[in-house]
Amino acid sequence: MILQYLKLLKDKRIVLASSSPRRKEILEKLGWNLMIIPSEFEENLQWESFSHPGDYVVATARGKANEVTKRLEKCGEKPYLVIASDTCVSLETQVFGKPKDRHDAQRMLSLLSGKTHDVISGVSAMLSYDDGWHEIVFYEKTKVHFGRLAPEEISSYIDTGEPMDKAGGYGIQALGGTLIEGIEGDYYNVMGFPLHKFCSTMAPYFGRLVK
Amino acid sequence: MILQYLKLLKDKRIVLASSSPRRKEILEKLGWNLMIIPSEFEENLQWESFSHPGDYVVATARGKANEVTKRLEKCGEKPYLVIASDTCVSLETQVFGKPKDRHDAQRMLSLLSGKTHDVISGVSAMLSYDDGWHEIVFYEKTKVHFGRLAPEEISSYIDTGEPMDKAGGYGIQALGGTLIEGIEGDYYNVMGFPLHKFCSTMAPYFGRLVK
Repeated sequence: MILQYLKLLKDKRIVLASSSPRRKEILEKLGWNLMIIPSEFEENLQWESFSHPGDYVVATARGKANEVTKRLEKCGEKPYLVIASDTCVSLETQVFGKPKDRHDAQRMLSLLSGKTHDVISGVSAMLSYDDGWHEIVFYEKTKVHFGRLAPEEISSYIDTGEPMDKAGGYGIQALGGTLIEGIEGDYYNVMGFPLHKFCSTMAPYFGRLVK
Repeated sequence: MILQYLKLLKDKRIVLASSSPRRKEILEKLGWNLMIIPSEFEENLQWESFSHPGDYVVATARGKANEVTKRLEKCGEKPYLVIASDTCVSLETQVFGKPKDRHDAQRMLSLLSGKTHDVISGVSAMLSYDDGWHEIVFYEKTKVHFGRLAPEEISSYIDTGEPMDKAGGYGIQALGGTLIEGIEGDYYNVMGFPLHKFCSTMAPYFGRLVK
């Protein structure tokens, strides 16, 4: 794990290639002073063309990380680490991103009601080495058990405006948390970033800073 | 569930009988304007004298809620709802509250390392009826899978000061989140308040406001 390296990492330039306030909040738990550079990668990959939703979110995360590192290089910038992530909701044979509109949110939440779905977040972490970038990719899956929602409850929830910018049409960290009976896995993964897997995966790389 | 009643509840006086900033944060997700009245109930019940840790935290929560409602009654105050809660960590045959000191935190975290424990939160919700108080009590259990922690990692974590005011010596919502592989159940229960069970248990009572 990485707690013992946090002091060393405090002085490193670390870029989060995302405009998500939730990803920022999660990574700021590590005490990092993040540079936020939202990616301009067009998120238009088709989940149907991947054999697993995990490959799909990893591909989007890679696209985001690559776009930002290239943009930074053009300005002669080479931070220590660039982090990008993408999250989707997978229910049976369907994959949900952010709802397009109110009707789409209603559709997603009606389908999720009373069932268990997977939240899958993919990460691309680009470490700068002397001879170039070293890319580390992975994804993490968390099961989410949704309570049974009455139609008027779904409408009340959509009225709050919360569903619109979130994969699957809900936010576990806010009012949406009341809809969820329980999860199996990393809560932060449902919120948008797999914190535990990121820390355990990156620990050996951060460990090299000590040497 | 209670989302459709939130507007009606906005004007009600709701008391949280706790000084925990985490419980406040969780209940404020519901958009409530909470009155915070920390309980003066002496938390000196012995967990060994209860047949289940759930009964122990419920008894402490009841003690807190009763103390606050009595104090409010003395001043002629009768809010709509008084909420109290207590949380403990249960590992095999032991129950952990907040660590007494650094050494105690080290002991708890060493025991939790690489194992699965239960976080159990008890709630007492006192609803004011015309003829007196109506008490609703319950507890909720969430399994937490801890990663394997090296001694230097435990020390680094204790150095941050985070463990000291938290049951089991860690906070899932902050740096402690990096130590946790995953959970089974309600994340907010681990943070200190079982949000989902509270909402589903209270819904029928709040539903009467509509009639």
